Amino acid sequence: MIRWHALAWPSDSFQSNVKYQTKYFKQRLDHFSPADDRKFQQRYLISQKYWKKGSPIFFYTGNEGDITWFAKNTGFMWDIAPEFNAMLIFVEHRYYGKTLPFGKDSFKDKEHLAYLSSEQALADFAQFIVDFKAETHGTQNSSVIAFGGSYGGMLTAWLRIKYPNIVDGAIAASAPIWQLEGLTPCDRFSSIVTNTFKLAYPECPKNIRNSWKVIRKLGSTKSGRHTLSTTLKLCNPLKSPSDVDALVNWLSSIWVNLAEVDYPYPANFLEPLPAKPVKAVCASLQKPLANDTLLIRGIAKGLNVYFNHTGNSKCFNTDQDATSHLGIAGWNFQSCTEMVLPVCMDGVHDMFEPTPFNLTAMAAICKEQYGVRTRPFWAQTLYGGKRIKAASNIVFSNGNLDPWSGGGVLKSLSKSLVAIVIEGGAHHLDLRHANKDDPATVKHARKIEKMHIAKWIKEASNE
Amino acid sequence: MIRWHALAWPSDSFQSNVKYQTKYFKQRLDHFSPADDRKFQQRYLISQKYWKKGSPIFFYTGNEGDITWFAKNTGFMWDIAPEFNAMLIFVEHRYYGKTLPFGKDSFKDKEHLAYLSSEQALADFAQFIVDFKAETHGTQNSSVIAFGGSYGGMLTAWLRIKYPNIVDGAIAASAPIWQLEGLTPCDRFSSIVTNTFKLAYPECPKNIRNSWKVIRKLGSTKSGRHTLSTTLKLCNPLKSPSDVDALVNWLSSIWVNLAEVDYPYPANFLEPLPAKPVKAVCASLQKPLANDTLLIRGIAKGLNVYFNHTGNSKCFNTDQDATSHLGIAGWNFQSCTEMVLPVCMDGVHDMFEPTPFNLTAMAAICKEQYGVRTRPFWAQTLYGGKRIKAASNIVFSNGNLDPWSGGGVLKSLSKSLVAIVIEGGAHHLDLRHANKDDPATVKHARKIEKMHIAKWIKEASNE
Repeated sequence: MIRWHALAWPSDSFQSNVKYQTKYFKQRLDHFSPADDRKFQQRYLISQKYWKKGSPIFFYTGNEGDITWFAKNTGFMWDIAPEFNAMLIFVEHRYYGKTLPFGKDSFKDKEHLAYLSSEQALADFAQFIVDFKAETHGTQNSSVIAFGGSYGGMLTAWLRIKYPNIVDGAIAASAPIWQLEGLTPCDRFSSIVTNTFKLAYPECPKNIRNSWKVIRKLGSTKSGRHTLSTTLKLCNPLKSPSDVDALVNWLSSIWVNLAEVDYPYPANFLEPLPAKPVKAVCASLQKPLANDTLLIRGIAKGLNVYFNHTGNSKCFNTDQDATSHLGIAGWNFQSCTEMVLPVCMDGVHDMFEPTPFNLTAMAAICKEQYGVRTRPFWAQTLYGGKRIKAASNIVFSNGNLDPWSGGGVLKSLSKSLVAIVIEGGAHHLDLRHANKDDPATVKHARKIEKMHIAKWIKEASNE
Repeated sequence: MIRWHALAWPSDSFQSNVKYQTKYFKQRLDHFSPADDRKFQQRYLISQKYWKKGSPIFFYTGNEGDITWFAKNTGFMWDIAPEFNAMLIFVEHRYYGKTLPFGKDSFKDKEHLAYLSSEQALADFAQFIVDFKAETHGTQNSSVIAFGGSYGGMLTAWLRIKYPNIVDGAIAASAPIWQLEGLTPCDRFSSIVTNTFKLAYPECPKNIRNSWKVIRKLGSTKSGRHTLSTTLKLCNPLKSPSDVDALVNWLSSIWVNLAEVDYPYPANFLEPLPAKPVKAVCASLQKPLANDTLLIRGIAKGLNVYFNHTGNSKCFNTDQDATSHLGIAGWNFQSCTEMVLPVCMDGVHDMFEPTPFNLTAMAAICKEQYGVRTRPFWAQTLYGGKRIKAASNIVFSNGNLDPWSGGGVLKSLSKSLVAIVIEGGAHHLDLRHANKDDPATVKHARKIEKMHIAKWIKEASNE
C-alpha cells in the first residue's frame, strides 16, 4: 500500500519580479472553540509593488510546505499582478514552514496536532483577510481572488465554496478535490502516470512494468542485490529484502514525480531537471529490453537523467525524497485524519507493482502512529464531494500529464464552475511563470483564467 | 443593557397529527478536532407516517430548547408532509433539551461548554443526515429540505449556505441572521415592538412609555413600592430599588414577548393567551392616562390579560420567565461567545426605558461569568453577514409585527434567495399549523414556500 505523503512541487528558476516582505499575523489557534483563546504567529509574504488603492488582492492559500517556496513557484500571480494592479499575499498553512503553533513541539503528539486540519487552515485564511482588510487602508473595497495549486488548489476551491463572502473567485490549479475516498477509482492516478510515460515512448512503461520482477528476482539473492546496487549506483548497497522494498517504493515515487513535473522546459526539482524529463528518462527505455541486465541498465540510465542532469551526483540515495521542501510531518498527520487520497496500482492498467489501497490497514497504522481515527468521508461532508454545483466562481485547471488530474474537475459544472484541461500540461503548469517554451494550451488556459479573474473583480465591484 | 437571552416561542394547541418516535444518534463531540474522537447521544424525533421510499426528508434544525417543543410547534411541516410524502425529522441542538454532551455537568465550566457553538450544531445536522441516509434504505436519493424558526431559522439558512451538498433548500422563518453586531441598528428591534403596539392602539405605546417614570417615582419610596406591588398584584412585594429594576426588566420582556406572539388566534405561551394579545393587553391602555394611578391600573389590567386569560392566577411573579421551555444556560453562553444579537432602547423612537447596548460591558460580564472572550464578528466571517448572494435556495420569511424581523432578510437577494414579509404576522406564524383565523398573508406565504420546496425537490431529482 502506498500512501502519497505529499504532492510534489518543482522549483521554478529564479525570477527577478518575485520580491516580497515577510510578516507575521496573530492567528487564532482554534477557530471553532469558544473556550480556547490561544493565538500563534502565522507567517505571510506580501508585495504591494503593483498595488493601487482599491485594487484587488491576489491571495495564495498556502499548502503543505514552506510558503516562500510557493511564492517563488507561482509565477503566474507575479506575471499578471501588474495588469490588475494587484496586491500579492501568500499565507503559510499552519504546521508548515515557519508557521508552527507550538514551535518544535508542534508534532509531538495528537494533543499538539489537534489544530492541524484543512478547516482550521481555511478559517485562518478567512480570518486573515477580514482582519487585514480592516487594518489596511484602501483594501476595504478590494476584491479578493484566491489562488492555489495542488493541495493549495483544493484549499483555494474550498475557500470559495465555504467563504464566498471573503473571496470573490478562485483559481484552483491541479486541485484533486475528487481524489478523496470513494469519489475516484484509486487506480486512475497510476494509469495517468503510465499514460504520460507511454506518450513519451510507448515501450517505456512496458519496460518499467517488467523491471519489478527483475528487481524482485535479483533482490532475493545476495549477489543479485550486489548487481542491483552497483548497476543503479546506490549510495547504500541493498542488504536485505526490506531494502529491496524500499528501492521499489523509491523508484515508484520517482516515476510518479516525473509525471508530475513533466514540464516543457528545464526546471528544478530536488535536482535540476531537463526539459520534458519523462521523455529524457524514457530515452534509455524506448526499446523492448527483454534481457534483465539491459533492463536494469536502462533504468539506471534513466535515473541518471533524473538525478544527475548536472553531472554532480556520484551515487543515488534511496532515502532521498523529492519533496524535501514539503512538511512531511504535517502531511502524514493530515493524510491520516481527513485528507485521505487513495492511490493504488494493479500492474495491468499501470506500470507499477500491484499495490492495493487498503483503508482499514491505513487506518490501523494511523491509529498506532497518532492515536487518531481516520475520517475518510468528513472532508466530503464538509466540502461537498461531487455535489458542488451550488458553488460559483472557481476555475479548475488540470494538465493531462499530471497524475493528480484524475481526481480533478475535468468538465465544467456550470457557467461559473469552469474546468480547463491543459493538453501536454503537468502539475499546475499554468501557475508557473510564463516561459518561451510554454505550449499554446497553457497560454490559452492562462488567458481564460485571466478573463474569469477580470469578470469576478467586475462583479464584486458592482455588488 | 438588555441582552435577550432567548427567542420566545409560543405553544401551539395540540394537534393529533403530531406523532413521532424518539431516537438517539451517536454524534461526534468535536467535528473540527482530528484528535478528539469522543461521542455523545443526540436526541431526534422522527415520523415516517407520510413517507414513501425515495421521497423527501423534511429536516428541522433544532434551536435553543427541548426539541419536542419545536416538533409540536412547527405544524406547517406536519400539515404539508402528506402532499410531499415527506419523512419528518427533528434533531435536537446540542446542549439543549435532553441532548447534553456531559449530562448535568454540561454547563459546569468553559471546558465543558467548549463544544457549544452554532458551527458544531450545523456539523451535527450535516453528519446526522449523511449517516442517516447511509443507514436508511430508500433515503439515498431523497432530497432534504431544512426548516427552522427563530435561531433555528438562522441555523436552517446557514445549513444551506455552508452545506448545500447536504440540504437542497431551506425555509428560514423569522431568522434574524442580520441581527448580528454591526449589521442592523440595535434600536430596530424595540421600535418594531413599539410599532406593533401602536398598530393595536396608537395611544398604547405612549402610555407604556410614560409608565416607566411613574414606576421609578413610586419605586423610590417604600409607600410607592407598596402601591406598585398591590396594584400590579405582585406575588413578591417590591422591597428595594433593585427589585424595581427587576420589575422594569420583567415588564419590558413582557411587552417584547407579546409582540412576538401577537397571533390572530388564541395560543399558549407561558399561560394561554387570547387572540391578538397585544390588542387585548392594550385595551386598558388605549386612552391617554395622565394620572399616575390610572396608568399603573391600566398596566395591571393589561398584565391580567397576559397572565390570567384563564382566571387562575392570583398574583404575578416577576421571577417567572416566558421562555421556560428554552435552555437559558446554553443560550447565555452562546450569546456571550458568537451569537451576539444587539438590542437597545432609546425611549424616543420606542416605548422603553433608554437602554444602550454596550458591547464592551457585555464582553466584560461574559469574561467574568465564563472566562471567555466574546467574538461578535466571527459568525459573520463564517456565515457571510450581508454578503450571502452566492448562496441559493433559501426562503426567508418574516412577520412585520415580529421584533426579530428587523434583523431578517426582508428583500429578495436573487431568484433563489427569496424574502417574504407577512403583513400582520408575528414570530414565524407561517411555521405554525394552519388555522381558520390565519390572515390571507400567511396563507399566501405558505403557498410560496411550498412552491419553492417543490422546485428544490424537482431540481435535486434532476441532478
